[in-house]
Amino acid sequence: MINVGIIGAAGYIGGELLRLLLPHPQAEVTKVYSASQQGRRVDSVHPNLRGHTPLTFTDPADLDSHDVVFIAVAHGKAAEYVTSLGPDAPCVIDLTADFRLRDPEAYRRYYGDAHPAADLTADFTPGLPERHREQLRTADRISVPGCMATAATLALRPLAAAGLIRPDVLIDAKIGSSGSGSSATTTNLHAERSGAMRVFAPHGHRHEAEVAQETGLRVRMAATGVEAVRGAQVLCHCTTEPGVGEQDLRRAYRAAYQDEPFVRIVAQRRGLYRLPEPKLLIGSNYCDVGFSLDPDSDRLVAIGALDNLVKGGAGNAVQCLNIRMGWPERTGLEFVGLHPI
Amino acid sequence: MINVGIIGAAGYIGGELLRLLLPHPQAEVTKVYSASQQGRRVDSVHPNLRGHTPLTFTDPADLDSHDVVFIAVAHGKAAEYVTSLGPDAPCVIDLTADFRLRDPEAYRRYYGDAHPAADLTADFTPGLPERHREQLRTADRISVPGCMATAATLALRPLAAAGLIRPDVLIDAKIGSSGSGSSATTTNLHAERSGAMRVFAPHGHRHEAEVAQETGLRVRMAATGVEAVRGAQVLCHCTTEPGVGEQDLRRAYRAAYQDEPFVRIVAQRRGLYRLPEPKLLIGSNYCDVGFSLDPDSDRLVAIGALDNLVKGGAGNAVQCLNIRMGWPERTGLEFVGLHPI
Amino acid sequence: MINVGIIGAAGYIGGELLRLLLPHPQAEVTKVYSASQQGRRVDSVHPNLRGHTPLTFTDPADLDSHDVVFIAVAHGKAAEYVTSLGPDAPCVIDLTADFRLRDPEAYRRYYGDAHPAADLTADFTPGLPERHREQLRTADRISVPGCMATAATLALRPLAAAGLIRPDVLIDAKIGSSGSGSSATTTNLHAERSGAMRVFAPHGHRHEAEVAQETGLRVRMAATGVEAVRGAQVLCHCTTEPGVGEQDLRRAYRAAYQDEPFVRIVAQRRGLYRLPEPKLLIGSNYCDVGFSLDPDSDRLVAIGALDNLVKGGAGNAVQCLNIRMGWPERTGLEFVGLHPI
Amino acid sequence: MINVGIIGAAGYIGGELLRLLLPHPQAEVTKVYSASQQGRRVDSVHPNLRGHTPLTFTDPADLDSHDVVFIAVAHGKAAEYVTSLGPDAPCVIDLTADFRLRDPEAYRRYYGDAHPAADLTADFTPGLPERHREQLRTADRISVPGCMATAATLALRPLAAAGLIRPDVLIDAKIGSSGSGSSATTTNLHAERSGAMRVFAPHGHRHEAEVAQETGLRVRMAATGVEAVRGAQVLCHCTTEPGVGEQDLRRAYRAAYQDEPFVRIVAQRRGLYRLPEPKLLIGSNYCDVGFSLDPDSDRLVAIGALDNLVKGGAGNAVQCLNIRMGWPERTGLEFVGLHPI
Repeated sequence: MINVGIIGAAGYIGGELLRLLLPHPQAEVTKVYSASQQGRRVDSVHPNLRGHTPLTFTDPADLDSHDVVFIAVAHGKAAEYVTSLGPDAPCVIDLTADFRLRDPEAYRRYYGDAHPAADLTADFTPGLPERHREQLRTADRISVPGCMATAATLALRPLAAAGLIRPDVLIDAKIGSSGSGSSATTTNLHAERSGAMRVFAPHGHRHEAEVAQETGLRVRMAATGVEAVRGAQVLCHCTTEPGVGEQDLRRAYRAAYQDEPFVRIVAQRRGLYRLPEPKLLIGSNYCDVGFSLDPDSDRLVAIGALDNLVKGGAGNAVQCLNIRMGWPERTGLEFVGLHPI
Repeated sequence: MINVGIIGAAGYIGGELLRLLLPHPQAEVTKVYSASQQGRRVDSVHPNLRGHTPLTFTDPADLDSHDVVFIAVAHGKAAEYVTSLGPDAPCVIDLTADFRLRDPEAYRRYYGDAHPAADLTADFTPGLPERHREQLRTADRISVPGCMATAATLALRPLAAAGLIRPDVLIDAKIGSSGSGSSATTTNLHAERSGAMRVFAPHGHRHEAEVAQETGLRVRMAATGVEAVRGAQVLCHCTTEPGVGEQDLRRAYRAAYQDEPFVRIVAQRRGLYRLPEPKLLIGSNYCDVGFSLDPDSDRLVAIGALDNLVKGGAGNAVQCLNIRMGWPERTGLEFVGLHPI
Repeated sequence: MINVGIIGAAGYIGGELLRLLLPHPQAEVTKVYSASQQGRRVDSVHPNLRGHTPLTFTDPADLDSHDVVFIAVAHGKAAEYVTSLGPDAPCVIDLTADFRLRDPEAYRRYYGDAHPAADLTADFTPGLPERHREQLRTADRISVPGCMATAATLALRPLAAAGLIRPDVLIDAKIGSSGSGSSATTTNLHAERSGAMRVFAPHGHRHEAEVAQETGLRVRMAATGVEAVRGAQVLCHCTTEPGVGEQDLRRAYRAAYQDEPFVRIVAQRRGLYRLPEPKLLIGSNYCDVGFSLDPDSDRLVAIGALDNLVKGGAGNAVQCLNIRMGWPERTGLEFVGLHPI
Repeated sequence: MINVGIIGAAGYIGGELLRLLLPHPQAEVTKVYSASQQGRRVDSVHPNLRGHTPLTFTDPADLDSHDVVFIAVAHGKAAEYVTSLGPDAPCVIDLTADFRLRDPEAYRRYYGDAHPAADLTADFTPGLPERHREQLRTADRISVPGCMATAATLALRPLAAAGLIRPDVLIDAKIGSSGSGSSATTTNLHAERSGAMRVFAPHGHRHEAEVAQETGLRVRMAATGVEAVRGAQVLCHCTTEPGVGEQDLRRAYRAAYQDEPFVRIVAQRRGLYRLPEPKLLIGSNYCDVGFSLDPDSDRLVAIGALDNLVKGGAGNAVQCLNIRMGWPERTGLEFVGLHPI
């Protein structure tokens, strides 16, 4: 049993970490930290946890010693905590964007400021088990990628690695409202966000830099908020290299994912759910990937879908924890997903 | 052409007043006031009005002289404006709760404070055309009722007036998120409010006092927020007096509403939309009323449905304006409603 | 390990049974039956189960021998299967309405026909663990109650049993679209059902007979379809007996539910989720119950909420199975529920 | 006053035609035809029209003589009606896909069959006022384009015509459930379609052929169904020609649309609704177009949004009628749109 602390536990990602870790057989969440909610009961902020925890939020200034610390604060704030934890601190799993980009120049371009602690970035292993599992087994600093970045990287990486697609890719991403966090802003009001098709990032979404880093492709990403609380889906518009057929694509995906516990290949000819769709994945740690190749041309659409708070965040972080600790990778992540929902 | 001003024009009710009054052939909105949005373009707050107005918001402290002033501020604030306008001011149409309850004791009970200007209440005519049309023709102070109160009063009043039902009525009300206004609060966040069935008033909803006042019944009202932006529906659980049959009920409704431009009787035996349903009424000024009488008992359910921002607010106010000015009552209120939606 | 069969496994309740039983450590689903989908893969109908089962649907005419048979067919059809299974058949858990009402007269009144196999009804134990746990331990015929009936019975029964409320109760129920099943009808079309507040049963909903049977109260129930796929909530409008206060109510609920694994008491003074709300329960086997007593009168609203397909159907059935088999009652039902959703 | 008939009036597009034409001051809908609903009251199928029409549906075999006939039947069926009406028939406005593609080869490729009446196609003028207004003034055969095709053509055509973009364009389209029509299929069930992000056409959506035809561009279109009943939005991913800046783009749009009654340019730097969004347009005849140019590259996203049943169908058809008859173009199409919704 390891002793876990969560900094930023009052947000939506923090709540998902709690949902997954409270019943986890090998981890005990001993303290949860929130600057804004200190003193309140955890289940008053995350009411789904009623009956599952007596914890209250603690001021992050009173950070205890933990075997593993998860950080789920606002982007830009994790660097402070990592710095103050110091190099001897135990395992840190960061869910913010702070240590995702290895290139400080890319950070500056996408986040608008110089990196607050650029020298620490090299310590972090990207928290993407499907690509960095071996390093994760011994990593003490893990940086969990962005939700849409995870979906797109998983959809594109096997094709890029096998040389099946040309290097320019356009990603059209859709995401639910929980991706905007739990702050009370007009943007996130029900009456304003309901039924939206809101192009909040017509170009240069920050996650495109992560996809480029992980796949080596030249990536453009546009992102639109659609009516959903959870769920993200990416359509990756690619061009295949000459001679590439459907079987090559399927083989590349199978080679990459046949032993993966949380990636399924969904690319059927028929059926309502023949391609990846996030609504089936709500609450689960799956990322479904699939594709459709135009029979008359070299046009390929590769698709990824996931729950942005689970495989796109907290679930992926728990999967990294399981790997790091040598536990079975599915531990605590068994939820299958619902239909209908 | 009359000269109209709107105080509190940046809220959702204010936006609906603008939507209805900007194209109104007899009224010109010359100035709109908002304490919080002064200086901003109206169409940056109400983006549906792009291309329909060059107006910007003005500080309410700089109130011009207008033929008619609409007040759509927070509850409790209208009394200040009415007091400062003085008794010689022109026609005032108030959409807040401040002058709805004639009994100061009821006001105190339901709003928790002494009335800020109780002596002015007697000047106000309730803005419910179906009940007070004659007084509205000459009224210079009009108080538009609450959205659920309007639906329930229209569903119940003909039955109460005809002595067809017993005096105790239980109202179960459902309402969309726009009824909570445009303030950015956690309560109204999309992720929290989406898919909600939120019993925000298990008893004593403020609108029950209005229904009691207008119908003479003893009314209990429970209110639940459900997934919708617009729309309110009331189920009024009644007991019929001995011997009352379906034809008596239908006759009472017909007598009350056969000449009404904005009340339809919807009480069919069959069909998907056989009873009143707000989704068909979004954007329209209709209140649909209907009923279902248990064939085996004296149990009656009377139902009312409307768009809470239109017949439950701004549309009703414009109907009152039309009556007050002697214009055709449907002017500016012709929108039929959409299906599907 | 017991051998389980599911008749009617292609519907929404059937799909939930599969979701819960496929990973169940003590039960093996060996065959699933569907008259309409025979030959198709289970995961083509229930796509959330991809990667979790290789099963295909079998014609119910080819029913194998099973230790336990679940029946989730259309109402009226279960009686045929139970009859043909014969009295020596193993444990049967029926999720249809066929054996819920002990009084054949009530059945005729609510279902419109004479009962197809009235003599078999006495063999069935109601599948409501909170009320019939002891009989369920040895029951070989279990009839799982209706979703709204379960919510209402759990909200009302402790109060009725303790003599805290008067016998006349009015229930206002709200339910999501999955309650209508998976048939393709105009009623259930997205464009028609979206945003609905559809009073499909203004009186005499069939579940009211079940609540009356289980609580001894005189029950009226009105039911409205609201915008949601899963979830049901009941507002039970009661009158307290003289002298009954909030502490009496709380005590009665605590006495009834303090050791129950799947009933939580949610009745707080403050907070967004201070009363039971189904959206927090999606996918979980919880039924949350709560209440609000009018401080100025004897008016009480008791509230129950659940996921209509889980505690209102398949989850409750699995809980009954666990009890019947002597397994820990939470087995396979550990999912906590999501927030936000 | 002209005499109008509508063939296929029971579908969603037919219902919108009725909503717009029943109050139209110059047109009288004298008969409405439906093969499936003959004999039923119009307002039983389109319940928003209660109180606005006493019409019932007639068998299309009993087609009367009309000044103008609208056709809103299933794709492939309009050709039969046009053929049987004969060349001397009065004005025909067809809302199906049958006469949209001038190239029979393109028709065969996208619709899978030889055109049922290819020789008649040349008689049809595309019903896109912004591009074909002059021909529409005298046209007796008008073919209204597809909803997503209209949005994309209006977003792209000014840029293509001015030579500002390169010829290869990728369109990512999102659409609500009403675009699938009113047939009761599993695909369109609320429980299946709710919250969907359904990639129903990863390539080769039929509307891409229309956009290519109207703009001269090489167009790829992917289409995804999202949670909404009404509304369509296209993101057109383009590359600008060298030296093209934001002002060039804005100027091209202004030149094209400054006098257009139903196209607004929405391309602001800030604000929640800074880019086109269909939810503001529900029920209105607007198509909002806008764009965002990446400041660091030649990447351009042009965006179009509309209500698929109005400017994407019935409203556009009425606008064509107004032009054809020499009436003011806004007649009957004045509805502004709602906010919030």
